[in-house]
Amino acid sequence: MLLCDVGNTSYHFQSGESHYKESAKTFNPSTIQETVYYICVNPHAKKVLKELENWVDLAGHVQMSNYYPTMGIDRIIACEAVEEGIIMDAGSAVTVDLVRRGVFEGGFIYPGLSAMQKSYTSISSVLEYPFNFDVDLTKLPKNSQDAISYGYLKTLYCEVNSHQMPLFLTGGDARTFAKIFPHAKVDEQLLFTGMKKIIKNITF
Amino acid sequence: MLLCDVGNTSYHFQSGESHYKESAKTFNPSTIQETVYYICVNPHAKKVLKELENWVDLAGHVQMSNYYPTMGIDRIIACEAVEEGIIMDAGSAVTVDLVRRGVFEGGFIYPGLSAMQKSYTSISSVLEYPFNFDVDLTKLPKNSQDAISYGYLKTLYCEVNSHQMPLFLTGGDARTFAKIFPHAKVDEQLLFTGMKKIIKNITF
Repeated sequence: MLLCDVGNTSYHFQSGESHYKESAKTFNPSTIQETVYYICVNPHAKKVLKELENWVDLAGHVQMSNYYPTMGIDRIIACEAVEEGIIMDAGSAVTVDLVRRGVFEGGFIYPGLSAMQKSYTSISSVLEYPFNFDVDLTKLPKNSQDAISYGYLKTLYCEVNSHQMPLFLTGGDARTFAKIFPHAKVDEQLLFTGMKKIIKNITF
Repeated sequence: MLLCDVGNTSYHFQSGESHYKESAKTFNPSTIQETVYYICVNPHAKKVLKELENWVDLAGHVQMSNYYPTMGIDRIIACEAVEEGIIMDAGSAVTVDLVRRGVFEGGFIYPGLSAMQKSYTSISSVLEYPFNFDVDLTKLPKNSQDAISYGYLKTLYCEVNSHQMPLFLTGGDARTFAKIFPHAKVDEQLLFTGMKKIIKNITF
């Protein structure tokens, strides 16, 4: 079974045990002949995929009343994969969603690594540092690089941990954020787990 | 006595009870003849002001060993104004600094309103909402506008409040952020208070 999570930057495929990515800019989805079960948040790709009969959009098979209308399908599918906990999907945005006893209770959106980096740089060139994921979050910093790193990371850390729930980390930057959240379960395949759950319940 | 806080976007003057701003882009500081005590974080203005004899840079009169070398002089001067508490200066960046018994203990930098707004928009056009400062911070949101508002504001709120210190709010967006921090003391003249303290100790 071929699964695909289509984001703004890439097509992320899973087939059996293996998974791989194709660039959203250059990949032509009509080159695939077999059935592909997919979710898609990329507006351009959405239009293209709608026209392809072998690409099955899983968005139409989710019980949407548990979520809200403008919520990204990637966040919804990740929530479907988890029975209890917080899901942090660290990609171009960092989405944080809470599921309790299988029910979505709400979530928020924080800028991803690259967007936040650009945000600091846009304010002043003196803030042009890479984030330090080894920053000491237990005390307020006294240097510029740590001042922005702490600003980006400790604020997020503080909010997420306040819920005292198990944390699941997924998305392209999951392993980077795991440095800040060492107790988190990193699962880069979480969305595929959610997709498989949905597929199981489909009555064709 | 004429005081001036020179930022990246404006020259902020205080004279007696009144204060006013001039655009950093168009204002010509050599049009002022009287003595001006100033601080400046604007690299271009710094060069211009250095050449003007009646403009006195207060940066040279601060005990810098209490701070760190690349720390903005505006943050330092704000710390000088406070004996005990957290100072949040909400401008193009939001700087958060902690002073305990007159000593700076560290601080961090968070993107300002406009920079953060652009950050979300740069990720996806579907995140193009103004921030809702009336967002309910007591529960995780279930709509897109509140999801980014909560992401920007609750994370900051959570970190700042964790220190359990009196909070001083200054900067151009002080009144906007006061909606989120209703217990804060809003003082748009805080930097001028710090500057006056420094001037008192100058031996000419």
